[in-house]
Amino acid sequence: MTDYLPLRHDKPLCGEGVALEAAPGPSPDDGLPPPGAPDIAIARAATPWPIGEVAARLGIEPRQLLPYGHDKAKLSHDFTDALVGRPPGKLVLVTAITPTPAGEGKTTTTVGLGDGLSRLGHKAAVCLREPSLGPCFGMKGGAAGGGRSQVIPMEDINLHFTGDFHAVTSAHNLLAALIDNHLQWGNALDIDPRRISWKRVMDINDRALRHLTIGLGGPAHGVPREAGFDITAASEIMAILCLSADLADLQRRLGEIIVARRRNGSPVRARDLEAEGAMAVLLKEALAPNLVQTLEHTPAFIHGGPFANIAHGCNSLMATRSALSLADIVVTEAGFGADLGAEKFFNIKCRQAGLTPSAVVVVATLRALKLHGGVERDALGLPDPEAVRRGARNLSRHVANLRHFGVPVLVAVNHFAQDDDQEHQALQAACDELGVERVVSRHWAEGSRGSEALAERVAAMVEAPTPSLALTYEDDASLEDKVRAVAQRLYGAADIGLEPRARRQLEEYEALGYGHLPVCIAKTQYSFAADPALTGLAEGHVLPVREAELAAGAGFVVVICGDIMRMPGMPRQPASSGIRLDPGGEIEGLS
Amino acid sequence: MTDYLPLRHDKPLCGEGVALEAAPGPSPDDGLPPPGAPDIAIARAATPWPIGEVAARLGIEPRQLLPYGHDKAKLSHDFTDALVGRPPGKLVLVTAITPTPAGEGKTTTTVGLGDGLSRLGHKAAVCLREPSLGPCFGMKGGAAGGGRSQVIPMEDINLHFTGDFHAVTSAHNLLAALIDNHLQWGNALDIDPRRISWKRVMDINDRALRHLTIGLGGPAHGVPREAGFDITAASEIMAILCLSADLADLQRRLGEIIVARRRNGSPVRARDLEAEGAMAVLLKEALAPNLVQTLEHTPAFIHGGPFANIAHGCNSLMATRSALSLADIVVTEAGFGADLGAEKFFNIKCRQAGLTPSAVVVVATLRALKLHGGVERDALGLPDPEAVRRGARNLSRHVANLRHFGVPVLVAVNHFAQDDDQEHQALQAACDELGVERVVSRHWAEGSRGSEALAERVAAMVEAPTPSLALTYEDDASLEDKVRAVAQRLYGAADIGLEPRARRQLEEYEALGYGHLPVCIAKTQYSFAADPALTGLAEGHVLPVREAELAAGAGFVVVICGDIMRMPGMPRQPASSGIRLDPGGEIEGLS
Repeated sequence: MTDYLPLRHDKPLCGEGVALEAAPGPSPDDGLPPPGAPDIAIARAATPWPIGEVAARLGIEPRQLLPYGHDKAKLSHDFTDALVGRPPGKLVLVTAITPTPAGEGKTTTTVGLGDGLSRLGHKAAVCLREPSLGPCFGMKGGAAGGGRSQVIPMEDINLHFTGDFHAVTSAHNLLAALIDNHLQWGNALDIDPRRISWKRVMDINDRALRHLTIGLGGPAHGVPREAGFDITAASEIMAILCLSADLADLQRRLGEIIVARRRNGSPVRARDLEAEGAMAVLLKEALAPNLVQTLEHTPAFIHGGPFANIAHGCNSLMATRSALSLADIVVTEAGFGADLGAEKFFNIKCRQAGLTPSAVVVVATLRALKLHGGVERDALGLPDPEAVRRGARNLSRHVANLRHFGVPVLVAVNHFAQDDDQEHQALQAACDELGVERVVSRHWAEGSRGSEALAERVAAMVEAPTPSLALTYEDDASLEDKVRAVAQRLYGAADIGLEPRARRQLEEYEALGYGHLPVCIAKTQYSFAADPALTGLAEGHVLPVREAELAAGAGFVVVICGDIMRMPGMPRQPASSGIRLDPGGEIEGLS
Repeated sequence: MTDYLPLRHDKPLCGEGVALEAAPGPSPDDGLPPPGAPDIAIARAATPWPIGEVAARLGIEPRQLLPYGHDKAKLSHDFTDALVGRPPGKLVLVTAITPTPAGEGKTTTTVGLGDGLSRLGHKAAVCLREPSLGPCFGMKGGAAGGGRSQVIPMEDINLHFTGDFHAVTSAHNLLAALIDNHLQWGNALDIDPRRISWKRVMDINDRALRHLTIGLGGPAHGVPREAGFDITAASEIMAILCLSADLADLQRRLGEIIVARRRNGSPVRARDLEAEGAMAVLLKEALAPNLVQTLEHTPAFIHGGPFANIAHGCNSLMATRSALSLADIVVTEAGFGADLGAEKFFNIKCRQAGLTPSAVVVVATLRALKLHGGVERDALGLPDPEAVRRGARNLSRHVANLRHFGVPVLVAVNHFAQDDDQEHQALQAACDELGVERVVSRHWAEGSRGSEALAERVAAMVEAPTPSLALTYEDDASLEDKVRAVAQRLYGAADIGLEPRARRQLEEYEALGYGHLPVCIAKTQYSFAADPALTGLAEGHVLPVREAELAAGAGFVVVICGDIMRMPGMPRQPASSGIRLDPGGEIEGLS
């Protein structure tokens, strides 16, 4: 694992896909640059509707919006409060096979499906996560879709957007400052300075801040201790923001955060420092969902961006709930592959919020399946139906896993121009064996015209009564058994291997009264196992559990299997060096 | 100097003034709570106009605004570009006597004067600095005026506002991360890790971050070195943002920032790290001036918040210029007392930008003059005309200093309910001796009705032709002579005492080609001398110059005389503990 992995959530680099796609299919007659043009060129050529007109598609009136410029807005708290109790629309989850460097296109499929549903006349909306600002200047690559399936204004969304990440940073660091201030003034709570687990955060890729000593310079400048910084998306506050039902719930959860241990071992919470109120004040606006639009003017809620390993990796509950109250069909995505992202979507978000999707779309590409089938990256351009068939075992496991939750499943094949017909047939055969429907979608090149077939199938699926969701474990199972259930039923593991430290921690959390929480497993996204080299279908492995962390405010126990990077670094040549304002003041180099 | 000084710029605590003012004068018939009610109660009872209607008072059309909610907006870059070349209105600077804990009321006078001018039918606007978020949760006290002279929406202005401070934080820390990333990847620029002067910033009072060691934990985690954090308002980027004429100037200045020395001693600039473009992209929106309103709906530009000691302490040039293009009379304020704030306003901002105020208002209160006259703080409630007369020597020096710049001067006495008539007469006598006009202003209690007399006088003064500005020193004087000129002519010092280190630094900056820059003197705001205990009129002292810093991007040389706090701490009981959301989601405890 390099230390500068792209962390625009789990989005793979899409530059290669763009290059390969350069031999375009038919160009949509929408006045935009042809498929294969840079995403930013397409995004800039689009004419956004005033955000009030986008909102009007969902019946939202201008006074219910807080505008941010002319093409972004937040829903007011008064308005989202008033939505509570409205009958919800249907929820569609977009997830994917195990990620590969070839790219699967989960976000473009989410956007394309939303546009396809709109094209068919449905009142549709999409819900996505917000990208993190920091990695934008480290690794190249935005996080607002691509091709004809993008959300706009792309530059704003990739930069400060409506300030939500900054609010999380402020609230997080206020709590950290209050801890050190408490130490400075006599430490009445008897906090053990060696056991402060609350770090600071910054939305920048800055490896030199991972491990620090702070409070140096003498008695006027704090109590010396070890500390560190994570990137903002890794903050528990981001997870809390995304799971809170309303402002009161937000403030309550913030108070529950465990920041340190006393010398006697008992936990110190944010509310012991009287911090939760000021933090909630800082996050008040950030809790309000953001509304933007796709290139085709479908309403898009982009709100909240928690990690998909140490957190649950989906957009905010506030956004999902608001969208469901306003639209007939809401398309949302979960992080990474279905083993991590969809699992957490169900076992954490749906469990806490009582949501049930009416359909799940699993995104795959022939290229990614070939990688899972053992093809080397530089041979991806050659047709290889056998490799597709081998790689489809990865897809099969994900489909079986999703059926485990009791939800209807559909496979969406994200089309690339150089896809081979025999490969498509090989995949069709694999899907036939599974008894799962497969739809090829050309949203990247053609927008909603290319996703119409997918949208038709999804619209038909959600006509059925909402299924009854089968979660992987009950609340009252032990934390260890919860981890084992996920590992065995979803990862295909023979068992889990709890290291003594992890065992002690899980036992302690149960003793503290947190045994009822769901688990949030942090492992590599590149394999069903904990070893990222085991692509395809790993089976019969033992999942090593190194340690655990209690996210008492977010309401889950993080279970750490392998090395998880919480503060990325930048590569030798950071993306920032190519980004600047041109003489006309336009942004160059951001993509 | 305690380490948790209030740093909402230089605003004194106003709680005491509020309490003393509780015996109100006549209540304005405006439907708001009576004078003496908490500022927040008055601000909340006001009905803001939609920001488009406020903008319309200046002839701004809705499409020229970027709204942030319904009562805040930025002017678009296209619009401010188009304003260049319009004949400017008249500029009025509000400054003050040497600050005291009693409070002078510079911001309320600025707001009140703007409202008074509006009341008289002038097309008026005010320009103020943005408050820093961090100190809001440390020391109590907002920075949006008070009583009937406030800007709204007060809570937003004191919190994230339009995100400008967050943008400065991001750009600053991106540059810091690029430096450490450069060290990590082989240090091709041969940066001396011991001589990196660019710190990181955070908008939180967090003393434990003043002195750190970073890059710990092994070779994957950076190069170990000493580092530190300042508060965001102390960033050179804040000064750059406030002095930049446009986006191109911003990007150029960012590239000029000197971040470190090579091992051979030569400076390393931000542009050597190819950082300025990405930083400018992060600051693009932040450079656009923010428009809000006073309680009486006078347009208020609140934009940029640099320190008034290590930087020049005024709102952005973009805001001042835009306001002058749009309004007939623009009222702005400078930081601290006139010796620091007005001096820098003239010698730095006006020098760089070619501005000349048509009138200068010096704010004083009887209470503050009594403190300068030697009265103890707990005896301020007792009438003491003699102390006022003694304290007026402080006022006299400031008036004389301002006349040195060639601008017409007026004294505004910010009225308090318990002011004594004989004290007012004593001050009148002192002003008569000086030959300076004195106007009592009751804007705090009465709004524009109370400031009408002041506004009438100011409106009459700006009718005269704009004076010719006499700066304190020429560009081509040596840096040492520039410091000496300010110290002798404005502080009444006998001479300056350059410590050897400071002398070496000034000589080096001249050798590097920066000898033409103005100097920015960082000393205590509580005295004409470098010793804060020397209130009243310090004379014949020697100003000790400890060290100097080159702000090559901002375009001045900081000259440090005494201890300057760049990262405040929090008190034992931080203000945050009283701030929270009430059950209805309203903010409690922020004032």
